[in-house]
Amino acid sequence: MTPFTVPGRTISLGIIGLGNRGYPQLRLLAEMPDVRILAVCDVYEDRVQRALSALAGTHSADATGFTDAEKMMDLVDGMEAVVIMTSWETHIPLAIEAMRRSIVPALEVGGASSLRECWQLVEHSGRSGVPVMMLENCCYGREELAIQNMVRQGVFGELVHCRGAYEHDLREEIGRGDIQRHYRQRHFLNRNGELYPTHALGPIAKLLGINRGNRMVSLVSVASKAAGLNAWLKEHRTDSPGLQQRRVNTGDVVTTIIACAGGETILLTHDCTLPRPYSRGGRVQGTRGIWMEDNRSIYIEGRTPARPGYWTHVWERDAPYMAEYEHPLWKDYLEFGERGGHGGMDYLVLRAFIEALQQDAPFPIDVYDTATWMSITALSEQSIAQGGAPVAIPDFTSGRWLSPRPATTGRYALDQLT
Amino acid sequence: MTPFTVPGRTISLGIIGLGNRGYPQLRLLAEMPDVRILAVCDVYEDRVQRALSALAGTHSADATGFTDAEKMMDLVDGMEAVVIMTSWETHIPLAIEAMRRSIVPALEVGGASSLRECWQLVEHSGRSGVPVMMLENCCYGREELAIQNMVRQGVFGELVHCRGAYEHDLREEIGRGDIQRHYRQRHFLNRNGELYPTHALGPIAKLLGINRGNRMVSLVSVASKAAGLNAWLKEHRTDSPGLQQRRVNTGDVVTTIIACAGGETILLTHDCTLPRPYSRGGRVQGTRGIWMEDNRSIYIEGRTPARPGYWTHVWERDAPYMAEYEHPLWKDYLEFGERGGHGGMDYLVLRAFIEALQQDAPFPIDVYDTATWMSITALSEQSIAQGGAPVAIPDFTSGRWLSPRPATTGRYALDQLT
Repeated sequence: MTPFTVPGRTISLGIIGLGNRGYPQLRLLAEMPDVRILAVCDVYEDRVQRALSALAGTHSADATGFTDAEKMMDLVDGMEAVVIMTSWETHIPLAIEAMRRSIVPALEVGGASSLRECWQLVEHSGRSGVPVMMLENCCYGREELAIQNMVRQGVFGELVHCRGAYEHDLREEIGRGDIQRHYRQRHFLNRNGELYPTHALGPIAKLLGINRGNRMVSLVSVASKAAGLNAWLKEHRTDSPGLQQRRVNTGDVVTTIIACAGGETILLTHDCTLPRPYSRGGRVQGTRGIWMEDNRSIYIEGRTPARPGYWTHVWERDAPYMAEYEHPLWKDYLEFGERGGHGGMDYLVLRAFIEALQQDAPFPIDVYDTATWMSITALSEQSIAQGGAPVAIPDFTSGRWLSPRPATTGRYALDQLT
Repeated sequence: MTPFTVPGRTISLGIIGLGNRGYPQLRLLAEMPDVRILAVCDVYEDRVQRALSALAGTHSADATGFTDAEKMMDLVDGMEAVVIMTSWETHIPLAIEAMRRSIVPALEVGGASSLRECWQLVEHSGRSGVPVMMLENCCYGREELAIQNMVRQGVFGELVHCRGAYEHDLREEIGRGDIQRHYRQRHFLNRNGELYPTHALGPIAKLLGINRGNRMVSLVSVASKAAGLNAWLKEHRTDSPGLQQRRVNTGDVVTTIIACAGGETILLTHDCTLPRPYSRGGRVQGTRGIWMEDNRSIYIEGRTPARPGYWTHVWERDAPYMAEYEHPLWKDYLEFGERGGHGGMDYLVLRAFIEALQQDAPFPIDVYDTATWMSITALSEQSIAQGGAPVAIPDFTSGRWLSPRPATTGRYALDQLT
């Protein structure tokens, strides 16, 4: 495995989507000595110009700008891969266009519009032989990887229940979406479901061996009323009477329970339109112990000291465990020096993609994972629309989850070797 | 309203159930100057003798002992009320037997065996005119009442989502139930559902105005596998090979989402067979803020100080709020001096019952509340048996929730005046 300081073979990229997510990621990629950005694309010309300016003075200074992604992929020679960081609903269609041209797509996170597009993604990849990776940065979070390390070493015993959440007050961003050209607004106004499942679900799916010996079988999803964003719009968008009066469809708190073939359950929470501190609401619970993100606390049977009396079970701070079970990838990374956004994990997920391409290795988050995780959004909408009815989660692997499959090894691996 | 130090008219009681719950509650009641215990009853003779010994030297020293509750209610004259603290499945049948004899029943907490018995409870009470109260002590918890005070004063804005849990490692108690004569074991071995909803649900139902302007409309419930108790039995019950091999039916973590007529959702968690610290997992969330029990933290928009930068929202400790919004009942109670189990709330719920009887006032937790809260157990079993299908929660008030109803006023009131 290549150390962080040693560049691999150069990967030539196109970048699609240069907004609040695409722009900082572009800058991070532009700093990598073994990455060359051939072209950048956004539907907004000013964003293209901003991106090209950012590349001036880098080794990707001769990149070309486009406002049409298909044209970019058609016209630029030697583009091995594209990184798609556009609106949620265009991730899969653009990934399919890339595969049609034998260009490897990396998709930023998001939820699917329909089950059909998830199947199309899997089937296009299968037919074309072009692999796909989702850039789920939270799979490379420091805490997430330390927890994974603990799970692999049996600290929690047999896993039974996991929780994760996207609890993030985005009222300002959503409420001003029409001014800020942010696609989130149209999703929150019109859809009702678990719009953004993968930050929480990705790391959990890897803990539970989803698509590798286990799979998610069904879910139920229930939405609360939508009160938070409506109240915010009334108070803050006096400039837009139409928007002020709009009915917001996405419930403030969308709660989803997923049942797995192995008997584990997963609770997901989507909570973006009420005032609150940010949390990914992590919980990992097994026959030997429990970890909770919200109070950074842990209880491990036989290790956590007992208190005398009836209430013998008390929490410990998780810090000593986090230090003891620091993931090897993060030890290396801290020595190399964290960089990029979201506590350093943005850099790691991009490197996981780049280095797998360099080594022609399977992606740690593959097309099955991408389709399965994204499908939760469409399935959640279906369940809510049917009053919380259980809906089946398709087996996008078509039975491959039952047998061992090639896994990424080395420092970016997220799957337990089977 | 009578101060704690001034006794009211004497209430003559029978006590049914003298086990781990009944015995300490009996002792607490025996200390009250305005309560006279006429008779005690348990199916186990040794428990009856222990109870009678405890009453020796008190003003209830001439109480009679019984092993048959119906016989007790038939033979003892002047019994105004009975306190039922038996196995869960006998609460409603015994309450109905009491009402048949015009004796007012107070039920300890528990879940229903069937919807049918919940309806019978409501209908018997309606026909006979005998009121019923559930002794849900958590409705009188110090934190629960401070939160209620905050909700009533609008601190959280419009409520949207609440959570509660019974997260209590009971493996030892359940696993040794056959030795300890504890009824919990037969429930966990044979049933699969939210067995114990009311500690969490009671206080939340009161926050949301359930049965008074609002109601719970439907629920979905999903159970994880049952791994924790099985593992415990294998390890600790080598004395009982039959039990060691028994299939445990109750999933380790049972997750239930309830939808309310007002658009709010409630998440309940039942988690009793995995190692973990105790929690009632409280969360209250509205358009202005959020409180969480597990890290004793709170965020109130416009009041909680913001941190500069992107992640402006950070938690505050809840202690200053708990002090500021201390419930008037608890201020009085602290001055009087806490007593009894579970942080003092056991005493308060018994006093709420006794003083409502003395004043011929409506019970703060009435027959509709009792039936509705208990029904969640039977409905959760149904939903789980149907793969998480949504099930309707009956309107036990038969439409009375739509109109104002007489509410307990004074210091034990749990309902907002309508």
